[in-house]
Amino acid sequence: MKSKLKVVKIGGNIIDNAEVLDSFLSDFSEIEGPKVLVHGGGKLASRLSSVMGVEVKMIDGRRITDDQTLDIITMVYAGKINKDIVAKLQKFNCNALGLTGADANIIRSEKRPVKEIDYGWVGDVKGVDHHILKTFIEANITPVFCAITHDGKGQLLNTNADTIASELSIGLSNVYEVDLYYCFEKAGVLRDVADDQSVMEDINSKNYPTLVENGTIADGMLPKMKNCFHALENGVTEVHIGLPNMIFGKDTVHTTLTL
Amino acid sequence: MKSKLKVVKIGGNIIDNAEVLDSFLSDFSEIEGPKVLVHGGGKLASRLSSVMGVEVKMIDGRRITDDQTLDIITMVYAGKINKDIVAKLQKFNCNALGLTGADANIIRSEKRPVKEIDYGWVGDVKGVDHHILKTFIEANITPVFCAITHDGKGQLLNTNADTIASELSIGLSNVYEVDLYYCFEKAGVLRDVADDQSVMEDINSKNYPTLVENGTIADGMLPKMKNCFHALENGVTEVHIGLPNMIFGKDTVHTTLTL
Repeated sequence: MKSKLKVVKIGGNIIDNAEVLDSFLSDFSEIEGPKVLVHGGGKLASRLSSVMGVEVKMIDGRRITDDQTLDIITMVYAGKINKDIVAKLQKFNCNALGLTGADANIIRSEKRPVKEIDYGWVGDVKGVDHHILKTFIEANITPVFCAITHDGKGQLLNTNADTIASELSIGLSNVYEVDLYYCFEKAGVLRDVADDQSVMEDINSKNYPTLVENGTIADGMLPKMKNCFHALENGVTEVHIGLPNMIFGKDTVHTTLTL
Repeated sequence: MKSKLKVVKIGGNIIDNAEVLDSFLSDFSEIEGPKVLVHGGGKLASRLSSVMGVEVKMIDGRRITDDQTLDIITMVYAGKINKDIVAKLQKFNCNALGLTGADANIIRSEKRPVKEIDYGWVGDVKGVDHHILKTFIEANITPVFCAITHDGKGQLLNTNADTIASELSIGLSNVYEVDLYYCFEKAGVLRDVADDQSVMEDINSKNYPTLVENGTIADGMLPKMKNCFHALENGVTEVHIGLPNMIFGKDTVHTTLTL
């Protein structure tokens, strides 16, 4: 029987506030059993771009990663944010190891092909090495991933953090029973975006098509849901979306996705 | 019998030139057997400080690491430089893993006590975990260290790269027969600083005191030598100083230090 493992993804709403981050990492470090943390970038990359006079280029709401932007992202995500998280987890006796996908060749990706839009140095994940991750985890290490991968030809690539979390979960489901947690600014997926109390606690492949058809799930939530179902269809046991406390048993209300 | 391991330290003269770095990494990746790379910072940190309008504070020729400088160093050393090296080594089929001392708690240090000078967030190494390094190396991983450590209480600390290389070598000498290579801008320690051909090929604990007394070894070379003998006195087999080619068997003339 496979042992359980939790993959937890956090974003700007946790990273951008030092106190919130500290409290989250304290709780995270107390999770029993193997765990993996994936973090997004928060506002620091845009702030540094502005200080350095590098223009943030967006097309259709997506950031374009040119040479300078990739440098900034590598400095902020893999440097400042990742290492601060690692040092703080060490304080809480969690033996964290900060990683990009290039480190130990864990996440290989491919530069997104240019069609209508040239996203620049953006990578789509092609494979995860779960063997080396298992070696780390069995050495009592907690991997902490930032949202950078590589193409194996010397090029770092900016990669969506939600996707990294789901692809790592899929890879790890070869050797663990994986629960994936997306920490969110709301208590879960809402039936009515104006009502924080309207959390849909169960979304599954049976009720999902209806929720899309009638417009309950739309816009930015669609790619998130796609990531979730992609994970479930490829071996991940459960996906959870909600406030961080859902992981630590402090809040019970959140969205659970299953097949 | 212990197997052999090479620890190689590179500095600005290699890092600051993309072509030189690429060529070095290509050669480095071909070294047979276990190896560890340690890199300094080069000029990029000062350049970023200048772009960001952060004043570089020096006292007696030593950089003072305040909050902003630590952030910049963490971005540049652990982010940009470290991850570029890792991605490039992956291209050369060397399974690199980029690390600070905080990652996997490998290098613990202590903030340098304030005496005449407050160096700020500068750390003196207190211990190296060679067990986890051995786990990595046995998994065919090549650790790549930048010059940042941590105090175990959540604080990252700027640490001299030469010292990191010698302390890692000492730690690893518990489980390997370690040769330590300091890549240098000259072919070795010179008897006459004005004469590049005057490399002293053998320095040992017998001829060293005379070389210091008669002023042949002086100034900036003294702390470097101190690092070398500290390593030799604590289990490291040989220390080599010279141009990078000394490692790859292309140049034979360089300085070898032994007890």
